Amino acid sequence: MKSKNRSDTAGVVSASEKETVSGRSSISKRSTPKFELQMGRKWAVENQVGEKNLVIDDCDAKQSVYVYGCKNSVLQVKGKVNNITIDKCTKMGILFKDIVAACEIVNCNSVEVQCEGSAPTILIDNTSGCQLYLGKDSLETSITIAKSSEVNVLVSGAGPDGDWAEHPLPQQFVHTFRDGQFTTSPVSHSGGL
Amino acid sequence: MKSKNRSDTAGVVSASEKETVSGRSSISKRSTPKFELQMGRKWAVENQVGEKNLVIDDCDAKQSVYVYGCKNSVLQVKGKVNNITIDKCTKMGILFKDIVAACEIVNCNSVEVQCEGSAPTILIDNTSGCQLYLGKDSLETSITIAKSSEVNVLVSGAGPDGDWAEHPLPQQFVHTFRDGQFTTSPVSHSGGL
Repeated sequence: MKSKNRSDTAGVVSASEKETVSGRSSISKRSTPKFELQMGRKWAVENQVGEKNLVIDDCDAKQSVYVYGCKNSVLQVKGKVNNITIDKCTKMGILFKDIVAACEIVNCNSVEVQCEGSAPTILIDNTSGCQLYLGKDSLETSITIAKSSEVNVLVSGAGPDGDWAEHPLPQQFVHTFRDGQFTTSPVSHSGGL
Repeated sequence: MKSKNRSDTAGVVSASEKETVSGRSSISKRSTPKFELQMGRKWAVENQVGEKNLVIDDCDAKQSVYVYGCKNSVLQVKGKVNNITIDKCTKMGILFKDIVAACEIVNCNSVEVQCEGSAPTILIDNTSGCQLYLGKDSLETSITIAKSSEVNVLVSGAGPDGDWAEHPLPQQFVHTFRDGQFTTSPVSHSGGL
């Protein structure tokens, strides 16, 4: 199995991780945690620290989920939603089933995102460190990335022993001028392959 | 002329820009400016604010230039040097002739860099906004970019009227899973072309 871009090998995003106590200690500076459905349309999950059992259960395909400023937490979305945005989160795990529109991951550090159903689009912007787990139904997803590094996609059941197969996505691109135009190609890392 | 990714149309990096007074007013917080040759090998140009006439004249191909923490300034390097690193600069202009190794632009905002001679490699990392002017001798340059946005290359004499022709480099990439592998392609912006 490839191991490029991978700082831990703990594997799949899980809601049953051990509770860490550290997250709670520095409450002083952080903003008020939120976990609520606003106007019947938007789930706001904000400023959660060290919460490993956040679950959105009763949702529908018209609702959106907005996760902001969370740390060391795990959120499960158990039904179909319109879209999920994960903004400014660190060491966050998100597990979801189906998405109608897109899952956006912006301004994050070290997040793990698992899609168990299908999602047409996953957008990753200004993010360092993202482990993206795709199940069999989400292999059609198009993943659009900008200004990000260390993005790995783990594809279900494709590896030996039905394991997750890891695909580091390119983060560097070379542009060269040929015949009046620039052509772009990803930098390949021979070492990791 | 294309105008994508371009906030101003002032054009070519110039050492004769009008002096702005604003730069000098907030001296309090900034670190000591440096402009010196260290150990005969490294030109340190640091924390310069609003200096439009910085010139490195007496240099050779074994020396490197390190530009750090500068703002609203313009630096000219008038001879061949081994390499130039531009780190954490904002609204900075750099003009150079020839480079033996590489020109690195890292952690910058809104910089303008002009190569009048040749440079084998230009590296741009974690930078938002870079206008890169390439003369006829530097079209062989390979430009490697990571985690950056709004990078435009302006190529000398290729446009109509011998003008600079502007090439916005892609900043978003789409990754799709095909036959057990991810393939990567730059997002094309139809609007700007």
